[in-house]
Amino acid sequence: MTKKFWITEQPLSINEVVERVSRREAGAINTFIGTVREFTHGKRTLHLEYQAYRSMAEKKLEQIGAEIAEKWPSAETAIAHRIGSLKIEEIAVVIAVSTPHRSEAFEASRYAIERIKEIVPIWKKEHWEDGEEWIGNQKGTKEYVNGVPDKEEK
Amino acid sequence: MTKKFWITEQPLSINEVVERVSRREAGAINTFIGTVREFTHGKRTLHLEYQAYRSMAEKKLEQIGAEIAEKWPSAETAIAHRIGSLKIEEIAVVIAVSTPHRSEAFEASRYAIERIKEIVPIWKKEHWEDGEEWIGNQKGTKEYVNGVPDKEEK
Repeated sequence: MTKKFWITEQPLSINEVVERVSRREAGAINTFIGTVREFTHGKRTLHLEYQAYRSMAEKKLEQIGAEIAEKWPSAETAIAHRIGSLKIEEIAVVIAVSTPHRSEAFEASRYAIERIKEIVPIWKKEHWEDGEEWIGNQKGTKEYVNGVPDKEEK
Repeated sequence: MTKKFWITEQPLSINEVVERVSRREAGAINTFIGTVREFTHGKRTLHLEYQAYRSMAEKKLEQIGAEIAEKWPSAETAIAHRIGSLKIEEIAVVIAVSTPHRSEAFEASRYAIERIKEIVPIWKKEHWEDGEEWIGNQKGTKEYVNGVPDKEEK
């Protein structure tokens, strides 16, 4: 079976993620694409560096897929997250959710990105114009001063 | 300038629509993809035929883009709708909305598909397993017995 939840260092293809959820029973596919934004609160980003506990991150993406299948039984989900060094405008994450009807596709896709920010162990280093900084967890609520979470957070 | 709102008889490429809204200021892109579903209320579709008042349909897609720009000033929108004969699982419509932050991308993309169903003069003929039927407008609230709207609806 083709993987539906994966972490990669390669550039992401939207089509490749969509293909994994497209099917005859679906009439709607929602995708969410997260890209590297140049400015955050007026500060210019030059590029971003994502790191992950890779096997754990893939397990957590699978968990999100299972949560969606429970909440929206007719949904099929695929998620790919890139790690490594990303330039401005490059794609960091692609979520695709297919459903028979459109409401569920929007809801489940939204749920997926919020859960990714909450539970997937991927963190990023911002390379600003005037320096660099480890941003900590994805919600920005924790700072990882050494670039990685403390052991108890793994 | 590249067109951001268009009707075509050619297969749609998700990437091509996304590329028209991707930009350095955006951190989020939401896409909605409408595909041809095999079963509707238990009835099997063999293929679908879409027709449109082409120039009017493109104008209405542009209007939806303008409405979005007014409601969500930071959003960029592109929409492509295919017409002609489509097989099961083929893509009928692709909407892409980019925004700096994700909430607006979801909201505006949802708004776009609802407005397409409301105001864009595209109608479809369902080729069922046991016959064929003009479905009328996209909300299914009006039947076009001759396959096209009456004059006053144009």
